[in-house]
Amino acid sequence: MKEELLFPDAEVIKRAHTIIEPFIHRTPVMHCETFDKMLQMQLFFKCENFQKVGAFKYRGATCAVASLPKEISKNGVATHSSGNHAQALALAAAKAGIKAYIVMPDSAPAVKKAAVAGYGAEIIPCAPTLAARESTLEDVVARTGAHVIHPYNDYRVISGQATCALELLEDIQNLDVIIAPVGGGGLISGTALSAHYFSPSTMVYGAEPEGADDAMRSLQAGYIIPSENPQTIADGLLTSLGDKTFPIIQKHVKDIFTASDKEIIKWMQLVWQRMKIIIEPSCAVPLAALALRADQFKNKRIGVIFTGGNVDFGHLPF
Amino acid sequence: MKEELLFPDAEVIKRAHTIIEPFIHRTPVMHCETFDKMLQMQLFFKCENFQKVGAFKYRGATCAVASLPKEISKNGVATHSSGNHAQALALAAAKAGIKAYIVMPDSAPAVKKAAVAGYGAEIIPCAPTLAARESTLEDVVARTGAHVIHPYNDYRVISGQATCALELLEDIQNLDVIIAPVGGGGLISGTALSAHYFSPSTMVYGAEPEGADDAMRSLQAGYIIPSENPQTIADGLLTSLGDKTFPIIQKHVKDIFTASDKEIIKWMQLVWQRMKIIIEPSCAVPLAALALRADQFKNKRIGVIFTGGNVDFGHLPF
Repeated sequence: MKEELLFPDAEVIKRAHTIIEPFIHRTPVMHCETFDKMLQMQLFFKCENFQKVGAFKYRGATCAVASLPKEISKNGVATHSSGNHAQALALAAAKAGIKAYIVMPDSAPAVKKAAVAGYGAEIIPCAPTLAARESTLEDVVARTGAHVIHPYNDYRVISGQATCALELLEDIQNLDVIIAPVGGGGLISGTALSAHYFSPSTMVYGAEPEGADDAMRSLQAGYIIPSENPQTIADGLLTSLGDKTFPIIQKHVKDIFTASDKEIIKWMQLVWQRMKIIIEPSCAVPLAALALRADQFKNKRIGVIFTGGNVDFGHLPF
Repeated sequence: MKEELLFPDAEVIKRAHTIIEPFIHRTPVMHCETFDKMLQMQLFFKCENFQKVGAFKYRGATCAVASLPKEISKNGVATHSSGNHAQALALAAAKAGIKAYIVMPDSAPAVKKAAVAGYGAEIIPCAPTLAARESTLEDVVARTGAHVIHPYNDYRVISGQATCALELLEDIQNLDVIIAPVGGGGLISGTALSAHYFSPSTMVYGAEPEGADDAMRSLQAGYIIPSENPQTIADGLLTSLGDKTFPIIQKHVKDIFTASDKEIIKWMQLVWQRMKIIIEPSCAVPLAALALRADQFKNKRIGVIFTGGNVDFGHLPF
């Protein structure tokens, strides 16, 4: 399909939602009086930690898989990932009845490998470097003819992630703001497009860790500054922006904030304690960033995308 | 008010719900496909871990406080508790604008004392024995004229706890079974009464830890066997049945099951991992008990009361 037919405009995002609706959970929007009082905001948490595979990534992976014509999908799909995209693509492929080949670095946690294998995907191990991951993936494609699904730099994936804000905007009226974490930019660009089309008065902000602030710097510089040697507990936000996500962010994201790991951990723990839900470190970044800017957002109605809840309980940061 | 006017019949339970509705959260009912498949049951989790103060106890405390005539409540309310009832009564009193005196053993975790104090209650410390707790509470009552609200052996409290199953039965039709943990019996007796009045075909079961199986033994013996030196991770279920809860259990609870701490911890962790919600050890007991009896409950529609989510993250059992 031609690129311009895939760009996530209003129609494409709505169609994406229709396509993936039978496969995904329509996740709930939660409130927390304690946080509203603490921060003097009205917060609406879109709980993608309750999404299948425990993360919003399942939306994008499902959308990409479901968009494939039979002649392409017949050889399966492939990616390299050590994180939530691996599980998301594995499950999306399983539901579609096609093969998934997931290149995973040897350093990936055993529990994540087990989850991917549990969905019936074939895991191809490789050394834990980007070069090894990419060359191994090339080998897999050469061997199998599988179609590669990038974790974020793909309009089908961005359309899928956009459905999260679409649902939030359907459920909660008159949001002043939506804020979401920024890694490679798939979620934030989809979120910004959904707000742009379906609620133009809603401002969209991104949030990232201080130790992985490449998106903020890229936005300021006007070109993509790659994420180099990022240092943060938020292990879902280590990647660099892509040439499809960055222009959307430039055009539609109002600003990108940062928060320190200390603040991220503090808010992760507060969410566990007060809301009784499990969120992963990356997921706490927007709330941490908002708390640092309470004056700026005082009395605003703010949608916060809680991105995921996949945590290794043996290694809690608190 | 006369005892017979307080006994939780259908009208009293409905009135209790009307009284407490403005103060409590109507907690959601959650599902988990993974567990339904694993256990071959249809499970409906009533999530009181999302209740205010993080536990169903807030229902009973609120009902008791709201039922007090002004001439009694003017001197405040008092109890001894190191657990969720302490926080529940403290907050219920604060919302009603009356004083709360909470006798807490020195051994109570600092975080729980801080929560109780945060609700504006007066904490009266005492030695960590039942005798010291009771005599200190007597002193408090003599000094203040406060009205004692027992954590479970009180019809007003039982009526409040009964509203939890009332809501569950309103939200989910045709439940074959409801199962809840048993400590002092306030929740299980209220649950059994609600099922009896509002859904007579629904069987109610209790669940308790193997190391605190006094309720099961009491039911078998036909008289209350006190809980002596209980040994379990489920620290909300250490207490003995009361003379108000036991007869209701005898009449309306079908059976009481046990589960080992190992199974309790396993299911607590599985709920965290798969449902992404925080439950405390006591809360995992019914699910652990069900899993051990999967054949007996195969294909049944089962309501499980998730009682609370107050956990010390510094001391996880997994």
